[in-house]
Amino acid sequence: MKVMIVGLGLIGGSFALSLRDHGLADEILGVENSEEHAAEALQLGLADRIVPFEEGIAQADLTVLATPVDTIPLLAVKALNRVSDRQAVIDMGSIKGELCEVISMHARRRRFVAVHPMWGTEYSGPKAAQHGAFTGRHVVFCDTEHSDADVLQTVERIFRTLRCPAIYMNPEEHDLHAAYVSHISHVSSFALALTVLEKELEERHIFDLAGGGFESTVRLAKSSATTWVPILLRNKYNVLDVLREHIHQLQVLRKMLERDDAEGLRQAIERANSIQRIIH
Amino acid sequence: MKVMIVGLGLIGGSFALSLRDHGLADEILGVENSEEHAAEALQLGLADRIVPFEEGIAQADLTVLATPVDTIPLLAVKALNRVSDRQAVIDMGSIKGELCEVISMHARRRRFVAVHPMWGTEYSGPKAAQHGAFTGRHVVFCDTEHSDADVLQTVERIFRTLRCPAIYMNPEEHDLHAAYVSHISHVSSFALALTVLEKELEERHIFDLAGGGFESTVRLAKSSATTWVPILLRNKYNVLDVLREHIHQLQVLRKMLERDDAEGLRQAIERANSIQRIIH
Repeated sequence: MKVMIVGLGLIGGSFALSLRDHGLADEILGVENSEEHAAEALQLGLADRIVPFEEGIAQADLTVLATPVDTIPLLAVKALNRVSDRQAVIDMGSIKGELCEVISMHARRRRFVAVHPMWGTEYSGPKAAQHGAFTGRHVVFCDTEHSDADVLQTVERIFRTLRCPAIYMNPEEHDLHAAYVSHISHVSSFALALTVLEKELEERHIFDLAGGGFESTVRLAKSSATTWVPILLRNKYNVLDVLREHIHQLQVLRKMLERDDAEGLRQAIERANSIQRIIH
Repeated sequence: MKVMIVGLGLIGGSFALSLRDHGLADEILGVENSEEHAAEALQLGLADRIVPFEEGIAQADLTVLATPVDTIPLLAVKALNRVSDRQAVIDMGSIKGELCEVISMHARRRRFVAVHPMWGTEYSGPKAAQHGAFTGRHVVFCDTEHSDADVLQTVERIFRTLRCPAIYMNPEEHDLHAAYVSHISHVSSFALALTVLEKELEERHIFDLAGGGFESTVRLAKSSATTWVPILLRNKYNVLDVLREHIHQLQVLRKMLERDDAEGLRQAIERANSIQRIIH
């Protein structure tokens, strides 16, 4: 199978490595806007050659869109405009609502599968690509009833080989759950970094005193604006909804602390502890 | 050296393992209120025997207080009431202001060193104790000008052997920086867990979709109320100060999102990214 990957950053690059490591691609074509990233990707073996989008799509059995989410819907349309009935297109973006709506009436909609493997790190660019990135993580497929059986089977087979259990959702469900489980964690982490940078004027102390838990909560604050501004804006209403609840929970804890409500704090912390039933 | 450790949980138990691993203690006496924890501690080799506080303190060259912070000031006074001029007492608590004030006029104040090694996990109890726990982490000593030179040298030597770089601060500085670097991260993580438990009614999805960053920000929410309610209440004004700033930062991000302010979000995220200069 000849695969074209559009965007050879953290996600696209890691997917390329997974395809290679499992012998799933005979050749990988890469599309990269940035010349620097193109050179890095070739050097790291993420693609066999860098091609223009239109040239690659004529040759690829499978085209993978792995660019920031604001660019995916239009790229999806442009890709579908160019594929035949034996080619397939997937995306790996973190937002599915807008994409699925945009392509819904496309004459070749059935050659597309909307895919979201639940993996990421706070790093970006080709150098952030990792071997074994997706293994063991769930993969979400959206609106699969609108995809041809052969396309779906190809994509399911790839993720089965990577040992990613499949979950099926509609795009609205996906975006809602992604806001709860991933997007709010990033907003919280960005705000925490800004808080500490604002309050802790002695930066040396942040470094020296780390070990008290700060590194783990602030890790996601290293994530790039190029990736995250489009995600937050495109999932605006879900993110705002959960962000308002998060601010409310912080205000409740603040009021308990203000009035020395040890029993209230104890109960809140014990309720929070129950997250360990779910995340081990 | 005969060492007595009061409280054989995460911190006291890990310290016992470090002392043993580096051959720093000939015998370790343990004090434990909980019979279950006492039995676990003996079985895990965290202490050679469990003794009553008064009996152990008569024998120990060094007494280590590693109980929740609300119990430390009184225990420190009771320990100092019983030590001779050749014995020493230290604590390992996360809050130093109240403790240092309480013991400030004690006739044997100079036999005490206030110590805070910057290490912890979200787990508690003897089973949470780890080998090599403190190695490479900084250790804070407070108000060392009020300790006898021989006591301070003994304690400094122990942490030098554990390869913990030393930092010297007064208790007020310590509590302020601890609020910024550790305590706010815990409050944020508790609130995040409560938010997601409140909003995400389908718990299976939290588990399945984890991988999007949630695990790392919510890890600290597993931390025990017994440890954390006293810490938050005893560092109330510092924690409230940084918590108000944190809520403010979240509200700023919320408002940017509400008015689709992509440029504002980009600048805020890039400012947050600068935390990577400090925490790698």
